[in-house]
Amino acid sequence: MTPQANPISFQTVDIALEDRSYGIHIGAGLLNASDSFRDLPAAHSAMIVTNDTVAPLYADRLQRSLESRFRQIHMVCLPDGESHKTWESLNLIFDALLARGCDRKTVLFALGGGVVGDMTGFAAASYMRGVPFVQVPTTLLAQVDSSVGGKTAINHPLGKNMIGAFYQPQMVLCDLETLNTLPPRELSAGLAEVIKYGPIADMGFFDWIEANMGSLMAREPAALAHAVQRSCEIKAWVVGQDEREAGLRAILNFGHTFGHAIEAGMGYGAWLHGEAVGCGMVMAARLSQLLGGVDAAFVQRLTRLVQAAGLPTVAPVLDTHDNLGRYLALMRVDKKSEAGEIKFVVIDRLGSAVVRSAPDALVAQVIAESVRT
Amino acid sequence: MTPQANPISFQTVDIALEDRSYGIHIGAGLLNASDSFRDLPAAHSAMIVTNDTVAPLYADRLQRSLESRFRQIHMVCLPDGESHKTWESLNLIFDALLARGCDRKTVLFALGGGVVGDMTGFAAASYMRGVPFVQVPTTLLAQVDSSVGGKTAINHPLGKNMIGAFYQPQMVLCDLETLNTLPPRELSAGLAEVIKYGPIADMGFFDWIEANMGSLMAREPAALAHAVQRSCEIKAWVVGQDEREAGLRAILNFGHTFGHAIEAGMGYGAWLHGEAVGCGMVMAARLSQLLGGVDAAFVQRLTRLVQAAGLPTVAPVLDTHDNLGRYLALMRVDKKSEAGEIKFVVIDRLGSAVVRSAPDALVAQVIAESVRT
Repeated sequence: MTPQANPISFQTVDIALEDRSYGIHIGAGLLNASDSFRDLPAAHSAMIVTNDTVAPLYADRLQRSLESRFRQIHMVCLPDGESHKTWESLNLIFDALLARGCDRKTVLFALGGGVVGDMTGFAAASYMRGVPFVQVPTTLLAQVDSSVGGKTAINHPLGKNMIGAFYQPQMVLCDLETLNTLPPRELSAGLAEVIKYGPIADMGFFDWIEANMGSLMAREPAALAHAVQRSCEIKAWVVGQDEREAGLRAILNFGHTFGHAIEAGMGYGAWLHGEAVGCGMVMAARLSQLLGGVDAAFVQRLTRLVQAAGLPTVAPVLDTHDNLGRYLALMRVDKKSEAGEIKFVVIDRLGSAVVRSAPDALVAQVIAESVRT
Repeated sequence: MTPQANPISFQTVDIALEDRSYGIHIGAGLLNASDSFRDLPAAHSAMIVTNDTVAPLYADRLQRSLESRFRQIHMVCLPDGESHKTWESLNLIFDALLARGCDRKTVLFALGGGVVGDMTGFAAASYMRGVPFVQVPTTLLAQVDSSVGGKTAINHPLGKNMIGAFYQPQMVLCDLETLNTLPPRELSAGLAEVIKYGPIADMGFFDWIEANMGSLMAREPAALAHAVQRSCEIKAWVVGQDEREAGLRAILNFGHTFGHAIEAGMGYGAWLHGEAVGCGMVMAARLSQLLGGVDAAFVQRLTRLVQAAGLPTVAPVLDTHDNLGRYLALMRVDKKSEAGEIKFVVIDRLGSAVVRSAPDALVAQVIAESVRT
């Protein structure tokens, strides 16, 4: 396939962050269009960072689209999966950059899902104290969430995303065609983050997701396009107000306090991030109910929607002797914690979320109920 | 010694960077004064990062001064020396932060020289995507240069300071009393960076350094106080105009292109950074002369001053078979390089520097002359 000058159609969502502003371009076939990259800063060389699953599918396509803009296009291929979101993988990027003589103007391209995007972004933030980078997310989860907003990180054995930077890309390019090759489990994982935007910000969108879950699971292009666009709009609105998560931005972590504990407790990669977030949202909704923010009907509605997206709603037992203790210990290393106090994102009324602590007894009740089948 | 309320006297140099502005406090006995830290953000916990040379001398003193402000004060002690400015040492800081349950508000204190400051700064930039930190430099080099301006980094086997961030501290505290315990070789290394400020920015200061080198080598308090203050003023002026080294700031790297090659070529730690910079400045001055910016008399004057500071002026042979090739290969991975072209900071007229490339033949001549005894 030769690069085409104009993709069929695309939408742009703007992230407004003063001199760090950029566009999220959403459309089918964007990866084939060298035109997609015309606004990038001029540079001698580019480095495509991808993984061994995505490379055979899309690396050639991206490389060909970049050939008219860069004299040298290098590539580094990382092992796939959350368990490889480590310093060792990050160092493979640094090794490649230095071995190829990449300089301060070299543009990094993150071609893949959230793990590739987070690691490439942190590599770009840190290599020579900062080089430009572009997000080219190929999973639904990365397109609707992780590639947007400049959060980059690697995991530490003692906690998820503990080492990283706020560092904005030059551009995000969401080619909806890449979602056609996504394994079903990954599609579901992405839908967890789509669902998330409803209860925290836009119940109209929540209604739409409920009405269109069948179309989304069937990967109907129009449904996916709307889901990606509306998700990015909500994320752009939140990030535009609070880039560095001093306050509001934390609401995007709805379901993530419980979810991170599940991911870490099961071993990174056993549950996909989106699966843990799906289950974590059900738990956070129940906690919200116990705190008086929502009623039982909403918790049931959310539970059904998470199930309809093919996601788990029953939490795993992380420790057969002291399950509650294990959950609490894991949640305590969450980045939202302060002075050892665990913070949760809870729905205070439909379409609105707050970050707060919760009485131990209520948290214990939620965990005990959630592991029941 | 109990903490005293008011140090005898201190000066403050301001770094003006909008919401990232801060003060450099310079005085004798500041480390003993809990009052020194009164402007810091309130937090539950602090982490002192230091090394096994500095800890026995000053860690207790800093800890006592912090006790009134933080409920928990943790400490992590790194191995001393440039050869330990690695990911492994950085990870000791992350391990300690996570093991002690440190959160997003924990304040990191870098107590030591440039290596401790650079690593603590990068740890602060990256831990949970950014926590506050304070520089407490205990070497002359760190007080006049590396602790000021927000450059943080670790080394990579293929290049010095290749992985890092621009991340400003909340405050820099230069206690001049700590210079009394500095080994003579470290004092000389620091004087290299003091000398640097003359040719690039202020020949009046250069004259003063020449006139006062004896007092500086004898550690006379008034001479050291002036050297630290004037150096910080010049650095603050440069950094205030170009925080992220888009242009002007690179002049602070006078002597560093050759110097980094010497450091890397000899193995990190064999030559101190300041020693390599001292020799590198003589080489850069000679290159400036060949390019027509200065005359032979200035090169001789600088060479004598570098010698008077106890620093080497004869460059080491890095490869007995192809010394020039080795120097060029090492200089090519310098962060100032672009598309493989080596950039040098050269003096275009006394008190003014520019960043530029140079003909290979001139660079070869400088290297060949510099290794002669």
